[in-house]
Amino acid sequence: MNYLSDTITQPTEEMMSSIQNAVLGDDVYGEDPTVNRLEEVAAEILGMESACFMASGTMANLASIMAHCPRGSKVLVGDESDIYIFEAGGASVCGGIMYEPIPTQRNGELAIQDLEKVFPFDPEDPQFALPALICLENTHNRCGGKVLSLSYLKDVYEFSRKRKIPIHMDGARLFNAVSAMDVEVKEITKYADSVQFCLSKGLSAPIGSIAAGTKDHIKKVRTLRKMLGGGMRQAGIMAAPALVALKNMTSRLREDHIRAKKLAEGLADIPGIKIDPDEIETNIVLFKIDENVCTWQTFLELTGNRGVTFSEMGYGRIRAVTHRHITDDDIDSTLAAVKHMMQTELKAACIS
Amino acid sequence: MNYLSDTITQPTEEMMSSIQNAVLGDDVYGEDPTVNRLEEVAAEILGMESACFMASGTMANLASIMAHCPRGSKVLVGDESDIYIFEAGGASVCGGIMYEPIPTQRNGELAIQDLEKVFPFDPEDPQFALPALICLENTHNRCGGKVLSLSYLKDVYEFSRKRKIPIHMDGARLFNAVSAMDVEVKEITKYADSVQFCLSKGLSAPIGSIAAGTKDHIKKVRTLRKMLGGGMRQAGIMAAPALVALKNMTSRLREDHIRAKKLAEGLADIPGIKIDPDEIETNIVLFKIDENVCTWQTFLELTGNRGVTFSEMGYGRIRAVTHRHITDDDIDSTLAAVKHMMQTELKAACIS
Amino acid sequence: MNYLSDTITQPTEEMMSSIQNAVLGDDVYGEDPTVNRLEEVAAEILGMESACFMASGTMANLASIMAHCPRGSKVLVGDESDIYIFEAGGASVCGGIMYEPIPTQRNGELAIQDLEKVFPFDPEDPQFALPALICLENTHNRCGGKVLSLSYLKDVYEFSRKRKIPIHMDGARLFNAVSAMDVEVKEITKYADSVQFCLSKGLSAPIGSIAAGTKDHIKKVRTLRKMLGGGMRQAGIMAAPALVALKNMTSRLREDHIRAKKLAEGLADIPGIKIDPDEIETNIVLFKIDENVCTWQTFLELTGNRGVTFSEMGYGRIRAVTHRHITDDDIDSTLAAVKHMMQTELKAACIS
Amino acid sequence: MNYLSDTITQPTEEMMSSIQNAVLGDDVYGEDPTVNRLEEVAAEILGMESACFMASGTMANLASIMAHCPRGSKVLVGDESDIYIFEAGGASVCGGIMYEPIPTQRNGELAIQDLEKVFPFDPEDPQFALPALICLENTHNRCGGKVLSLSYLKDVYEFSRKRKIPIHMDGARLFNAVSAMDVEVKEITKYADSVQFCLSKGLSAPIGSIAAGTKDHIKKVRTLRKMLGGGMRQAGIMAAPALVALKNMTSRLREDHIRAKKLAEGLADIPGIKIDPDEIETNIVLFKIDENVCTWQTFLELTGNRGVTFSEMGYGRIRAVTHRHITDDDIDSTLAAVKHMMQTELKAACIS
Repeated sequence: MNYLSDTITQPTEEMMSSIQNAVLGDDVYGEDPTVNRLEEVAAEILGMESACFMASGTMANLASIMAHCPRGSKVLVGDESDIYIFEAGGASVCGGIMYEPIPTQRNGELAIQDLEKVFPFDPEDPQFALPALICLENTHNRCGGKVLSLSYLKDVYEFSRKRKIPIHMDGARLFNAVSAMDVEVKEITKYADSVQFCLSKGLSAPIGSIAAGTKDHIKKVRTLRKMLGGGMRQAGIMAAPALVALKNMTSRLREDHIRAKKLAEGLADIPGIKIDPDEIETNIVLFKIDENVCTWQTFLELTGNRGVTFSEMGYGRIRAVTHRHITDDDIDSTLAAVKHMMQTELKAACIS
Repeated sequence: MNYLSDTITQPTEEMMSSIQNAVLGDDVYGEDPTVNRLEEVAAEILGMESACFMASGTMANLASIMAHCPRGSKVLVGDESDIYIFEAGGASVCGGIMYEPIPTQRNGELAIQDLEKVFPFDPEDPQFALPALICLENTHNRCGGKVLSLSYLKDVYEFSRKRKIPIHMDGARLFNAVSAMDVEVKEITKYADSVQFCLSKGLSAPIGSIAAGTKDHIKKVRTLRKMLGGGMRQAGIMAAPALVALKNMTSRLREDHIRAKKLAEGLADIPGIKIDPDEIETNIVLFKIDENVCTWQTFLELTGNRGVTFSEMGYGRIRAVTHRHITDDDIDSTLAAVKHMMQTELKAACIS
Repeated sequence: MNYLSDTITQPTEEMMSSIQNAVLGDDVYGEDPTVNRLEEVAAEILGMESACFMASGTMANLASIMAHCPRGSKVLVGDESDIYIFEAGGASVCGGIMYEPIPTQRNGELAIQDLEKVFPFDPEDPQFALPALICLENTHNRCGGKVLSLSYLKDVYEFSRKRKIPIHMDGARLFNAVSAMDVEVKEITKYADSVQFCLSKGLSAPIGSIAAGTKDHIKKVRTLRKMLGGGMRQAGIMAAPALVALKNMTSRLREDHIRAKKLAEGLADIPGIKIDPDEIETNIVLFKIDENVCTWQTFLELTGNRGVTFSEMGYGRIRAVTHRHITDDDIDSTLAAVKHMMQTELKAACIS
Repeated sequence: MNYLSDTITQPTEEMMSSIQNAVLGDDVYGEDPTVNRLEEVAAEILGMESACFMASGTMANLASIMAHCPRGSKVLVGDESDIYIFEAGGASVCGGIMYEPIPTQRNGELAIQDLEKVFPFDPEDPQFALPALICLENTHNRCGGKVLSLSYLKDVYEFSRKRKIPIHMDGARLFNAVSAMDVEVKEITKYADSVQFCLSKGLSAPIGSIAAGTKDHIKKVRTLRKMLGGGMRQAGIMAAPALVALKNMTSRLREDHIRAKKLAEGLADIPGIKIDPDEIETNIVLFKIDENVCTWQTFLELTGNRGVTFSEMGYGRIRAVTHRHITDDDIDSTLAAVKHMMQTELKAACIS
């Protein structure tokens, strides 16, 4: 039972068949019909003018940020965002862009007054790097899969118009937000100037992400993709399963959410585990271990021994992600295993 | 008959089957067994300590250059090299590295005295960016697929040791060099500190390249790959056909070379086409059109109309690349078509 | 009465004479004896192996950070530090370095547990940019001229050794710290691997800063200085007054501190002004205006009309900096003017 | 007799007096009246909208290039230009800009057909970094002080308009060109979008350069200057002598040119020295030593022993620069010393 990440999902049989049947071409010349089809379908679903297939969410975010932000400007990112923490500082390295981390609220939001503060009183003063982009993350990984509300998105969007600065949405798990809110994707993405989502997380495609935005923006993204080395040849072998993912896999994310809730509720009943099940909105479950019982390292090790894989998410938090390979039975077995462990092994470990 | 590039080659049936049977994992966690296998096999063949699967040759070159060259140093590249001309200045953008183009000899070599000249008399003088890497291209695309001789490689290698500077070989078409020289790959790569080769050119795999070098170097490359956005999930769907390519496809490159020679000899017999067939060493054929007959643009257009696709390669040169989908019959048909065109249409066009 | 900054100080007569008598040479060739003398004297005072004259504190910080931090690494800076806020993101632009802002304590310190948190659990994980340098600011501008204690400096130094990461001290107002603590400079700088201080702030020299550190470090700084365009010719005309500043001006900073305290105490007695005089440690006075009385903008405007120039320092704070041109009488006049204004004009403004 | 460079010139007495009398302010706040005056005067003379005082020619070129060229674009520079060779790759490091060196003609020109070649056939193709700026050098240092003709400047200017790309003129020795052509500065600078010239070369000011261009351009340059660390405080101590230089020193450059010619003619008469005096247009004299007589290293050493300092300029060439401290008598003494040396010492050295 591997709760490490929804990125570990294997392609479905239908996806594997789609690869066999895919019409392939050289995508560096724009001649892979399957990639072209994927980009059209994705743009359509997102309600964006144009879309571009990317090797990863990291590349989609990096190229999007670089397309928006000139050298020497600032990108405003959540201090708990994946872009800030897990993407190796790419925008500074490749783009000469300064990250300005904004405090992340418990619900994944960046407070507008915090964004406001970053704009210098005198933008003409050459000592300031100027903000050029706001990045939002939806759903928010390190906040435990939190969904950004439409009213919040509307507010930030209006703020951004007033400040004449675009919004990029890191929607690595965008379709989990869609599923949780039960709205059309466009209802969310209309509040962003550009967006990226991952095909290889809950949607189970083997590889890739989509970057989308205006035609001009995507033209820049495509140029940057080439420079970064993300131009690939018969990329249709990735695009074909991605098309299946978009067609068939978005609706099943709801199941992952139900199971995540069930896991959270079960964990809440186990003494020594600190979690509020009401916080679970999508497929990510964050919890802590009572420090009097054991460290998170011990917990990870012992659950690992019992065939349950979790990961750590900073601040002593443990993360479980539900996905296509986690069944109802798995949740039951996991809870049984953890319960047993906490009551026997850990009690022993704690005493010794 | 598409001579645009060997990058357009479709995966073989065996490759497509290999995808179906591939054991997949999440390569971002280093857990895709097929990718791991590919990296082991590739390192073994190349005689290098370690190898890393990359999304493209561009990314393999970029990450390799960045791993070798600190910010503010110079990378010495041929002025006719693909790295210098076709890779969007990535080393300057992402690495803060200065390109120093060295004159490329007709045979693809960079003369050692030209490399020598670049090293400043006083390396302590802060006004100079200092050379940190020599890049060679083998076979050499814009020199018409020329193979670098072992004696030349040995000489540059010795020069580089004296100058304490590493060599990176852009071996996008390394196996064409291997085939042309009929040696083991290691006989070539032993004269380089790092190397990249493309799986998606003549070897016909759908996607990807291999970067190889010392363990330390490849560790850096892997870190840079993540930052550039080249970390991919179930990358085994690309690695499986790449393994087939390495196993089965290297030996057949000889056929492409024979056909390229045949094409060149045929073209040499057509009045108005300027080419020396003795120059053809591998699968690339460069030729020019007598300016009195027509421009290269007209030539490309008219051959295109007849179903023959060539490309331009600067200086009015036309490039034809042979590959798996070009048969003996195709060569005959191509020559017939070009001959007819030159004798009828173009004569007419020329007169009018 | 201009409290804008101690940077506005005019050179003394002795400084101006020193320019006339300076022996000059071309410093780009290392042949300006006055610059060479300044660098020797500065290194000696700081207890560092080597020093380099820089055009500004910004350049001294930028070159020092770049010398310590390879491309793609992180520099840990206070979120209220001048380096982070007022230096235009130079390390990201010119160095491909990511800024990681650390919460700044009220007393200017970066808590060691906050620094600790930034080091990733698994430094081998390529998704993390790795910390390569800690920057401290002493005295701390936006904390109101706070001095970092020797015990704190010792603690951070020990932490940094454990973490194998150097410390750079932005000592723009280092001699104010020296004066406030009444110790030798070396007692402070021995806890840093590199340091910069400004000659053109309280020390009253017209131009320039000193960067200091090990020989190796300063050699790198000097090379970077050239690239940034900071190599200057007959720089002795700046170095001569700087030598005077180092010889004669450090001891008089005590007077600025006494006057700052006096100003603070006077302001504390004026209703509507919020300030705790015990917070004043050196020559910077931060205070706020009761929002019920007026905005800081109004306050700045009205004091400006009366010939008193303050500046804003974020969060509605007003900053007054004492320096060589602020006398005891000026303090009295300033307090009288502000008092009168608060009691008459502002009361009126407030009512209307 | 120091012919190392005209950068070694000492300020005149009038310059030194001007420093004493200069009204100073804090130029970081734009409040140094002497700097402001210098910038106005310089813009006026150059016929440009706006000008900015810079710490050096390197910084003036770097900030100008960065202001013109977005990240990922190309700057076209002469392969023998100081920008390409002597400025440490700053545009790649700080700007993410790729240098494209263009062959430099003997007379310092970049042939328009060579510039033309660099523009890719298909600018939409993402594999190409696109040209964003042409840099010219006038007078041309490594071509021996050659002056670019007005007709050439006009031709490049027209080409650049057609290609919609700006021109930056590195006029480090612009006033030498003015003097040689006996025209108004504006007649030259009207063919450039931006220009920089050095105050600290033949004009003898101690420090600094002027960058000039449109208001928009200079606003960008000023912002970049701050980021690079080139914002300086009481910069009037540099601007005052620079104003004297602009007023009094431009007309005397003619004398340096006459002496350079005389030196060249004298050298031409000495057996073993290879030089064509007709090539000398301004204050730079390049010559070679007959390899059968001695190496350039030996020549430099032996002349150095006799108190004559030359420098090397690549390709075995020796450079002599005339300037304010080289008198007619110095030329005579120099020629006598070299002659004697060639006829006695070197003959001996050669034989042994």
